[in-house]
Amino acid sequence: MSEKRTEIKAFGEFRLIEHLTSSFKPGNPGTRLGIGDDAAVIEAGDKYFLSSSDFLIENIHFDLTYFPLQHLGYKAVAVNVSDIAAMNGIPRQILVNLAISNRFSVESLEVLYQGIKAACDNYKVDLAGGDTTASPTGLSLCITAIGEADKKDITTRANAREHEIVCATGDLGGAYLGLQVLEREKEVFLSNQQMQPKLEGYDYLVKRQLKPEARMDIIYELQEMKVIPTSMIDISDGLASDILQLSKASKKGFRIFEEQLPIDKKTYETAVEFKLDPTTCVLNGGEDYELLFTIRQDDYEKLKGHPDIHFIGHVQKLEEGNQLITKSGNPVTLKAQGWQNFQ
Amino acid sequence: MSEKRTEIKAFGEFRLIEHLTSSFKPGNPGTRLGIGDDAAVIEAGDKYFLSSSDFLIENIHFDLTYFPLQHLGYKAVAVNVSDIAAMNGIPRQILVNLAISNRFSVESLEVLYQGIKAACDNYKVDLAGGDTTASPTGLSLCITAIGEADKKDITTRANAREHEIVCATGDLGGAYLGLQVLEREKEVFLSNQQMQPKLEGYDYLVKRQLKPEARMDIIYELQEMKVIPTSMIDISDGLASDILQLSKASKKGFRIFEEQLPIDKKTYETAVEFKLDPTTCVLNGGEDYELLFTIRQDDYEKLKGHPDIHFIGHVQKLEEGNQLITKSGNPVTLKAQGWQNFQ
Repeated sequence: MSEKRTEIKAFGEFRLIEHLTSSFKPGNPGTRLGIGDDAAVIEAGDKYFLSSSDFLIENIHFDLTYFPLQHLGYKAVAVNVSDIAAMNGIPRQILVNLAISNRFSVESLEVLYQGIKAACDNYKVDLAGGDTTASPTGLSLCITAIGEADKKDITTRANAREHEIVCATGDLGGAYLGLQVLEREKEVFLSNQQMQPKLEGYDYLVKRQLKPEARMDIIYELQEMKVIPTSMIDISDGLASDILQLSKASKKGFRIFEEQLPIDKKTYETAVEFKLDPTTCVLNGGEDYELLFTIRQDDYEKLKGHPDIHFIGHVQKLEEGNQLITKSGNPVTLKAQGWQNFQ
Repeated sequence: MSEKRTEIKAFGEFRLIEHLTSSFKPGNPGTRLGIGDDAAVIEAGDKYFLSSSDFLIENIHFDLTYFPLQHLGYKAVAVNVSDIAAMNGIPRQILVNLAISNRFSVESLEVLYQGIKAACDNYKVDLAGGDTTASPTGLSLCITAIGEADKKDITTRANAREHEIVCATGDLGGAYLGLQVLEREKEVFLSNQQMQPKLEGYDYLVKRQLKPEARMDIIYELQEMKVIPTSMIDISDGLASDILQLSKASKKGFRIFEEQLPIDKKTYETAVEFKLDPTTCVLNGGEDYELLFTIRQDDYEKLKGHPDIHFIGHVQKLEEGNQLITKSGNPVTLKAQGWQNFQ
């Protein structure tokens, strides 16, 4: 090992992966797309196969003091299905790798698997393999999702073109504020174990955090409407961070408008209650698992009445950069502030 | 959560997975084979697509006091490639999921990725995705291997037939004894940190533990010789345990002969040095990542001169059970004693 020591946090997740994998070059003709998109894309006759995997690690990605195991199982599947959705693909199988310490009983794992099964049933995904092993401490889940897409349908991060329209589904910032509410109630509980957590009125936000859904409904609707997005990513790290990913892959700039950003009333009110700027929560909250995509102007007519698709901006030249135009008309340069687990 | 508490160790890994997944039924027509083989098998036009994933967790599967990070990276890829080999498939891509604590520097991860790259180069596999995340403690790797097989070539665990010949590649028990040597030297070092580990003379065994190879060479040779095994598994949990997996899936019994078991001279000598029964090391050692397969009698002529394929027994009726015939001619019922990480 070299004597020099560079701390991981000096890099951040994206740069670290880039740094570590820069010397790898795909050699198999079937590897259509490797690192740098939501899923790997592999030639499979007249289709593409898609594969993506994600870790969920106790006390990094979830806190079991308030995260029910059934929801955890569901979320672990949903976030991987979301990666397949982000390629405009259809999920088909998952592999579930589970590492658990002796702290967990068979009964608690049954509850976790009930959540996994509920998600498999909902997304029509087959559990097709995996591994269960011991862990020195805590619980880790690593799920691989496998899906497919017709060659004409596949959507990467790379093909946004100037003047196209930027779309976001659902509403943003809710999962982040749900986490703030859960963390606040945990602190209250830890300081006085007689206190019961007060989650009434925050149901929507808590659900956004504990039971996010992959937007497969949108993918199926887009296919019915014959709209193929030109670029797409799921909003897992935060809108700003994910726009910068589309920008980087497509080599285009993005201009989005604060007044067009979708935010739920409860998200807005709770941000104010927590003395947080609601727009910052929308831009940097993360974990909403909504879809961010670009469409050709021609496709706008097909989508414009959709209650859950919001038109938040447009694509511009790379040299024009990535900005948010505030409600007062000022441009603010977009910065990635997503999750920084290494801090 | 239920009030009843059943300890995980009361089940053991295989029964636990069966128990947790018994209610899952594949629903997609493309899911050809799910849980219960070395890899998931998915329809892909005129081929099958294979996918398998495995966890490697610090202080469960490896000890970094003697496991060099470069070898760890190599082994993590090799053990997943071995699962694809065990389906008579060709590996094409891997996804690497890495969880690391702040203890690790960027330089140490570079060394880990050098090992991953060496294995990718050796097995002609593309790094096609993955995730890097923080971990509260230690290092975990979860690698997914993706491969393919022609439909005529695919070999599951399920089709061994009576009177067929049981084959094992390489030699067995070495990885287990390598681990014993490394653990002994670690104890010596911990009790007196002036002592340097004495690994001279044990190079072969240490290499079997630290740098196992997936037997893709055998897979390519079988294809050249036009031999398609009737059933196959990689020897990761121990020969006895893996024979019982073939027996269960094929619904046949297996009879193997102690005098035919492949054991390296150094493995034998070191077993004796450690006061272990060499045959027990071969049967239960695990982690050799050799291949165990069955062939039709007609194929014996093609393989009989092969220096690295050993004919260790034959397939019999299920009712006849699974036995080892000792050198003195006594039948001993085979029992699975592989790795029991939950103890």
